[in-house]
Amino acid sequence: MKHHKIAELLKTEHLLQDYTVKGWVRAFRSNRFISLNDGSTINNLQCVVDFENTPEEVLQQINVGAAISVKGTLKESEGKGQRVEIEAQEIKILGEANPEEVKKTILSPKRHTLEKLREQAHLRVRTNTFSAVMRVRSKLSFAVHQYFQQNGFNYVNTPIITGSDAEGAGEMFKVTNFNLKDTPKNEDGEIDFKKDFFGKETNLTVSGQLEAETYALGLGQVYTFGPTFRAENSNTSRHLAEFWMIEPEVAFCDLDGNMDLAEDFIKYVLNYILENCDDDLDFLENRIIQEDKSKPESERQPMKLREKLKFITENNFKRVSYTEAIDILKNSKPNKKKKFNYIIKEWGADLQSEHERFLVEKHFKCPVILFDYPANIKAFYMRLNEDEKTVRAMDILFPGIGEIVGGSQREERLEVLQQKMNELGIDEKELWWYLDTRKFGTCVHSGFGLGFERLVLFATGMTNIRDVIPYPRTPQNAEF
Amino acid sequence: MKHHKIAELLKTEHLLQDYTVKGWVRAFRSNRFISLNDGSTINNLQCVVDFENTPEEVLQQINVGAAISVKGTLKESEGKGQRVEIEAQEIKILGEANPEEVKKTILSPKRHTLEKLREQAHLRVRTNTFSAVMRVRSKLSFAVHQYFQQNGFNYVNTPIITGSDAEGAGEMFKVTNFNLKDTPKNEDGEIDFKKDFFGKETNLTVSGQLEAETYALGLGQVYTFGPTFRAENSNTSRHLAEFWMIEPEVAFCDLDGNMDLAEDFIKYVLNYILENCDDDLDFLENRIIQEDKSKPESERQPMKLREKLKFITENNFKRVSYTEAIDILKNSKPNKKKKFNYIIKEWGADLQSEHERFLVEKHFKCPVILFDYPANIKAFYMRLNEDEKTVRAMDILFPGIGEIVGGSQREERLEVLQQKMNELGIDEKELWWYLDTRKFGTCVHSGFGLGFERLVLFATGMTNIRDVIPYPRTPQNAEF
Repeated sequence: MKHHKIAELLKTEHLLQDYTVKGWVRAFRSNRFISLNDGSTINNLQCVVDFENTPEEVLQQINVGAAISVKGTLKESEGKGQRVEIEAQEIKILGEANPEEVKKTILSPKRHTLEKLREQAHLRVRTNTFSAVMRVRSKLSFAVHQYFQQNGFNYVNTPIITGSDAEGAGEMFKVTNFNLKDTPKNEDGEIDFKKDFFGKETNLTVSGQLEAETYALGLGQVYTFGPTFRAENSNTSRHLAEFWMIEPEVAFCDLDGNMDLAEDFIKYVLNYILENCDDDLDFLENRIIQEDKSKPESERQPMKLREKLKFITENNFKRVSYTEAIDILKNSKPNKKKKFNYIIKEWGADLQSEHERFLVEKHFKCPVILFDYPANIKAFYMRLNEDEKTVRAMDILFPGIGEIVGGSQREERLEVLQQKMNELGIDEKELWWYLDTRKFGTCVHSGFGLGFERLVLFATGMTNIRDVIPYPRTPQNAEF
Repeated sequence: MKHHKIAELLKTEHLLQDYTVKGWVRAFRSNRFISLNDGSTINNLQCVVDFENTPEEVLQQINVGAAISVKGTLKESEGKGQRVEIEAQEIKILGEANPEEVKKTILSPKRHTLEKLREQAHLRVRTNTFSAVMRVRSKLSFAVHQYFQQNGFNYVNTPIITGSDAEGAGEMFKVTNFNLKDTPKNEDGEIDFKKDFFGKETNLTVSGQLEAETYALGLGQVYTFGPTFRAENSNTSRHLAEFWMIEPEVAFCDLDGNMDLAEDFIKYVLNYILENCDDDLDFLENRIIQEDKSKPESERQPMKLREKLKFITENNFKRVSYTEAIDILKNSKPNKKKKFNYIIKEWGADLQSEHERFLVEKHFKCPVILFDYPANIKAFYMRLNEDEKTVRAMDILFPGIGEIVGGSQREERLEVLQQKMNELGIDEKELWWYLDTRKFGTCVHSGFGLGFERLVLFATGMTNIRDVIPYPRTPQNAEF
C-alpha cells in the first residue's frame, strides 16, 4: 500500500479512511500517543496506539528516533493541539533506535544548544529548528529560480575551478592534482604548474560575475546560483568558506535598472516564503520569541520574524547616495557621541555594519540602497562616474544585518577599464577574454551579488550562518 | 524609453506602434536590412534602415557584432522569412565592432568549427548554436527544480569541499590553502594537514549522495543539483573534470519506486523543453539535418532531434534484470559475430556503451532500465539482494549514449553495510556519520544520480560535452 505524506493528511478533508504513514517517532506518551514526523512538515501526526492489540515487542520498540510505519484510520482528534489523528490498526518497526544510544545524540527529546547540533550536523535536520530552516531554504532557492525564469533570465553555470582571480580580491583556495609531498619544480625552483591537471595554477572561484558578464552580453539577461569560496580565516557568525551566491547580470541595464531589479527580486522571494512556508515561519517566529524571553530587553529582536520580512516586502527601498549618507552619519547622534566603534570622519570612509544598520533602523526606518560609492573602496570593474571619484556601485542595506546585496553598473568603456586595471596592477593578459567583451559591441550593463546564506539567515531569523547550510565549511572545520 | 525584448516583439499582436530594441548586429544587407539579435530568442528582428535619413557615420558603424539601439515602428513585413519588422526612425551605436577585428573572431558571419568556438568560449554564446544550447540548458535546469519542488522534494546543497571520499571511487582534486612550494611536514615527514585551512586533508566532492542520504532520512525527500568533480585524465567527448549533477534521495522508497521516480522525472523535464523551447529545438534539429548531409548515411542520426526526445517521453521504459540482459547480449548477433569490441562471455561482465545501446536501439527499441547488477561491479552502499550476489542497482539506458542515470536502493542494514565496508577497506571512522543514519531509525531508501551535461547533450543533439557547458574544464584546460 502506497504511503501518504503527513503534510497531506494534516490538511485533507477525506477523514474516516485508511491511510499508511511512515516516519520517525518524535515522542511516545502513555504507551498510547505517538508523535510521528516524516519531514514533509514541521507538524507531527498523532497516532493513537491500540495498545491492547499491539504486540508487546512492537510497543517496546516505539522509541524516540525509530522509523515506523503506521496503518490506520484518519479521524477528527478529540485531544487538543491537532485537528486530526490516526487510529492505528497496524504498526511496523522499520528501523530501531536504541534509547541508550539516542540519549547520547541530539535526537533525544530535550533542548540542545545550536553548538551541540552543529557537532551532529548529520542528525540535526531531524530537529524542528533545522527541518524548518532547511525547508525554508529550499523554498527560497526555488523562488530565486522562478523569479528569474519568469522574467526571461537564463541560468548560467559559471566555472567553479578557475584560472583567474575574478575580483582581484579575497584569498582563494588552491585546486591541484599534485602530490603535495613532492610538487614538481621547474629550473628556477618555482612550482611547475604545467604539470598539474589543468596545466596552470587553478583556484576555487570567488565570484562568477566576470563570466556571467560575457554571457549577459550575448543572452541579454542571465543569473548564476552556485557555490563560491573564500579562504579567509574569519571565524565569525557571518562568514563561511563555502557559500552559495546569486549573481544576475543584465545587458542594456544601468544602475537605476539594477536597483529596480534587486528590489523587485528580493520582495518576490520573501513574499514567496511568506505565502508558502506558513507552518515553518510560525515555528521559527515562536522560537525567537521563546529565546528572547531569557534575554534582557535590549538584546531582544525589535520585530517579530514575519514583521521583519514584511518590513522589506511592504516598504519602498530608500535610495540614498553615499555622499548623502556620509553627511547623515557624520551628523548623527551616535557619531557625535562616539557611540559608533568606527567614527565617521570624512567622505571616503568605508561603512561598517553599525553605520548601515543605523541608516536603516534609526534614520530612514526602511530598507536602504546606497549608491555612487568612492571609486577607491570598490572593485575595478565598476563604472566610473563623470566626477571621476565615484563609481556606479550600490549596496542594499537590511535591518539587523546591514549589507545584503552588492552590485554595480559595469565599466563598459574599454579604455577606462584598461586604465583602471593598469592602476591596480591587474594583468590585461589574464583577463583578455573579459576585455574582449568591451571590444565587440560593448554596452551599458549591470548586475549584483547576493550571498544566499545571508538571505536564509534573514528569512529564518537564525543568527549564525553555520545554522542555515547543511554542512558548513569554516576554518578548521570540514567534517562530514 | 524602456526597451523591448525581441522575443516579445516577434510574437506581439500590437503592430503599428513604436518600440525601442537593443541588441547586437548579426548582419547588415544592402545598407538597408539589419538582422538584430538580443539573446532573448534564436530569431533576429529585421530592422529596416531609412538610409537617406541616417547619418553616414552611423551607417558606417552598423557592423556585425556592434551593439545598437533601434527605435521605430513595428510593421507587418513585406519580405520573406519574417512576420514583422521594425521600420527604424532612430539608430544609436552603443558599442562599436571593428570589422577587421571581428574578422579574427567567431563573431564573423561564416561557419566556424566547434573547436574554434571553444577557443573563444567567451564569445560563442553570441552564435546561434550556443545561444540555443544555453537557453535549452537553462530551461532544462528550471524543469529539474520545478519537478522536484512540485513533488514535495527539498533542495539540499551538499558540501563541495569534502573531507571524505564519498564513493571510494574516482580521483579527486585536492583543495588546499598551503603554499605549494613549501608544504609543512610533521615529524614523520608527512604533510601536516592540521596546519591547512580546514585542519585536515580536503578534496572536491565527487558526489553529494551520502550527505543527501542523511537529509532524506529527516526531510523525507531531497535532491541536490550542484557541481561535482573528477580528476580523471579522460580527454573524451563525454567527460568533464567539472560537471553538474542531480541526485534525488527518497526515504521509504524501494528500487521500484526509484525507477518510477527516475522515469517520471526524465519524461517531465524533456516534455518541458518540448513545450517551452520550440524555436531553439527547431534550430538545433535543422542544424543536425544540415550537418548530416555531408556525412555518409551510416553516420547520420537515425532520428530527428524531437523524434529522439519523444522516443523517451512517449515510450514506457522497459525494465530488465542484468541477468536477463546478459542472456540477450550473449545470444545477440553482434556478440556471436564478434562485432562488439567487448565480447560478452559470462555473467558478471561490466556492460559497455555498445551493449547498452544495442539493448535500447536494436533489441527493445525503447528506453531500458537494467536492475539487479552483480554486487562486485557496484558501489558499497547498494542494497544486497537475498541471492547475496546481486545488488538493488539500476541504470537507465538511452539511445545514442547508453547509461544516463545510475541509481540504487541503499543498504539500510547496519551490519551488512559495515561488513561490505570492511571487505572493501573503507574506514568506518571516516564515515561514522553515515553509519549513524543506520543506527537511529534506519529505513528503506533509494536515489539516483544524473549527470546534467549528459542530459543537455541528449536534449540538444550536440555531440561533445564541452559544447553544452559555458566554460568546460578538462585536462590541460581551465581557460576563462
